[in-house]
Amino acid sequence: SIDAVRLLGRLRELGAIGRNGEGRLTRLAASDSERDGRNRLVSWLEAAGLEIAVDRIGNIFGIWAEDTADRPPLMLGSHIDTVINAGIYDGCYGVLAGLEVIETLKSSGFVPVRPIVVVAFTNEEGVRYTPDMMGSLVYAGGLDVETALATVGTDGSVLGDELRRIGYAGDREPGFLKPCAYMELHIEQGPVLEREGVAIGAVENLQGISWQKVSVEGDANHAGTTPISMRRDAGYAAARVITFLRDRAKASNTPTVATVGCMAFEPNAINVIPSRVTFTVDLRDPDEERLKQEEAALADFLKMLSGEEGVAISVERLARFEPVTFDAGIVAGIEAAARARGLSWRRMTSGAGHDAQMIARMAPAAMIFVPSKGGISHNPKEFTGDDELVAGANVLLDVVRKLVGG
Amino acid sequence: SIDAVRLLGRLRELGAIGRNGEGRLTRLAASDSERDGRNRLVSWLEAAGLEIAVDRIGNIFGIWAEDTADRPPLMLGSHIDTVINAGIYDGCYGVLAGLEVIETLKSSGFVPVRPIVVVAFTNEEGVRYTPDMMGSLVYAGGLDVETALATVGTDGSVLGDELRRIGYAGDREPGFLKPCAYMELHIEQGPVLEREGVAIGAVENLQGISWQKVSVEGDANHAGTTPISMRRDAGYAAARVITFLRDRAKASNTPTVATVGCMAFEPNAINVIPSRVTFTVDLRDPDEERLKQEEAALADFLKMLSGEEGVAISVERLARFEPVTFDAGIVAGIEAAARARGLSWRRMTSGAGHDAQMIARMAPAAMIFVPSKGGISHNPKEFTGDDELVAGANVLLDVVRKLVGG
Ligand SMILES: NC(=O)NCCC(=O)O
Ligand SMILES: NC(=O)NCCC(=O)O
Repeated sequence: SIDAVRLLGRLRELGAIGRNGEGRLTRLAASDSERDGRNRLVSWLEAAGLEIAVDRIGNIFGIWAEDTADRPPLMLGSHIDTVINAGIYDGCYGVLAGLEVIETLKSSGFVPVRPIVVVAFTNEEGVRYTPDMMGSLVYAGGLDVETALATVGTDGSVLGDELRRIGYAGDREPGFLKPCAYMELHIEQGPVLEREGVAIGAVENLQGISWQKVSVEGDANHAGTTPISMRRDAGYAAARVITFLRDRAKASNTPTVATVGCMAFEPNAINVIPSRVTFTVDLRDPDEERLKQEEAALADFLKMLSGEEGVAISVERLARFEPVTFDAGIVAGIEAAARARGLSWRRMTSGAGHDAQMIARMAPAAMIFVPSKGGISHNPKEFTGDDELVAGANVLLDVVRKLVGG
Repeated sequence: SIDAVRLLGRLRELGAIGRNGEGRLTRLAASDSERDGRNRLVSWLEAAGLEIAVDRIGNIFGIWAEDTADRPPLMLGSHIDTVINAGIYDGCYGVLAGLEVIETLKSSGFVPVRPIVVVAFTNEEGVRYTPDMMGSLVYAGGLDVETALATVGTDGSVLGDELRRIGYAGDREPGFLKPCAYMELHIEQGPVLEREGVAIGAVENLQGISWQKVSVEGDANHAGTTPISMRRDAGYAAARVITFLRDRAKASNTPTVATVGCMAFEPNAINVIPSRVTFTVDLRDPDEERLKQEEAALADFLKMLSGEEGVAISVERLARFEPVTFDAGIVAGIEAAARARGLSWRRMTSGAGHDAQMIARMAPAAMIFVPSKGGISHNPKEFTGDDELVAGANVLLDVVRKLVGG
């Protein structure tokens, strides 16, 4: 079994990097605080005797190859960037558990028949730069590295400049190691496992993700003198989109989710009717046909609204990923490992996007989930108990041992 | 009659101060660009031979007293601060027309029986610091000067510090001149005069204004994994308030207007359900009882919403002014002056707040309106034709001549 004290200690240590004066954790991709997190991770990879590599999009690799460097490696990983005001588990757990599994196998004298690589992918969260899962998407060949490096962030920064600035613009070509398989251990970030009292999720698929940015143009005018009937109020139109999405999702009995997370009013003055409002729409569904229907329903509503309110509406696509089916063999291996350890398990769908979904384009992939208390994530209250974390890492250890045992 | 070329030239010159690289005009109260506008105004007041005074809240006075300095003056004025991305007429027209009237009378050899004072009040717009009409409110004794100077702006600045920084923290005590009457010439900022083809508005009252800041606290959570039924979405709650206010105002057949102008989402990330949303509500009605009813209806809705959505809602009052009735004698004088010049006129209500509404607490007051093209204001498209501007200034001249003729 893995060294629980070491794994949990590192998780807390990494979780202390990037806190502001009020203790809020924010480690946005390629920021100063994420550089500090990367440096700490690299120091652990080095201490474990792994070979370090960094590719052009800033993905960090710790490679344990011994005499098998010519064989396709097994890859374990996730990410260490966070959202704003984040918890400590999302992403970091998967990276540190990957390292933990390697160290456990190394120190036990185990001799793998192929390299094992632990990887931390760049900009998984997609908060500072879109699309999300960018490092793994580029690695799997789904996005050109030059295009990705030229991405302009919410703060006006350019990802390539920022990677150079923090010292993580590597020289390896993304995709330089073709894995034989990829595994990612992650907190569920949703309520299913906890609600059902199940310890291990064997993730068999991952829902489709559609991100759009909607801009509404109305007319700025005086809040006191403009009769309601003469207004072209961009803020009112935006509010109607939010209630439309929610009412539609609530009325259906599908697992569709819709979220408006970003919102900006212009000129944003108390006595001026908003002239321009920009907001994001995050739509998800495990079924590609249904996701397309939801996108079409939104487009129809925007068209109707534009006519009804006399506002101009434009839409920009920020990210679009189809649902992904994971490798049946690895999923079965996860179930078997959970059973062998006496842990309860279930097959499930991932509601969140993950790097595994991108690497699935180039190699058989699957994920292991552990419970999230209250289903809360992307929030400082994100929590998974120590025993649950250790159980997940041990299941990963057992599956890895099978995959590289020869 | 007034010197049309001089008045219109100054209006355009002042309107050129505070434009950014893209030509957008923004001269927020006590900012660098408003300092530049103040300096220009003061240079004109000095050139006209007026005595300059600045009070502790930064109101600027140009005094024409001759031998009558012991008598209560007639005061003419408005403000020169602007909203964000503003037009050139709002406020500036009234200040410059006041100066124009004084210069016209002076150069014609007219001898007034009392001083005439032109005033530019600080922070009328209320965009950077609330409440709006702050300089005139303090001047009329409705707000303590120390409290006003301590106001923290939307950008975190303190008004008193900013006035000192730009050189307009004067030493006169607000209220140091008790006017016998106050008149303010202003663009309508609404559609009534243009729609009816009327040249002059004799403003007999001004509607009540209620400004509130609403904060909604929900729960940040993952946009992909959190079922709709488990969300406490502060953004959705805010959207429901916007649609409630609009639907209610539209369904009623009262002149009530409601506007949500400012909006902020936290953490404002694409894949995080908003945990905290803050927005402003601007409610107005010419009838105090109805304004109270609207405030109560909003409070009831927020209570209901808080229960329905499981969010915590708090409300902060930013400004509250009852409707004001102007001086019947001056209003009749405006009608008589318009008639004598062969101009069409009508009595009307002001939808916007104005400094006249504050000075009405300490002296008889009234306003003159001229048409606004398309009813547009607080917008670079704000426009009033030259002839209309000159007509308004001449009506002001005639009423002033009556009030100070002896
Ligand atoms: N796991 C995770 O939070 N990924 C971020 C991308 C997403 O929004 O699903
Ligand atoms: N006249 C004017 O725009 N005043 C600003 C205060 C208000 O919002 O009515």
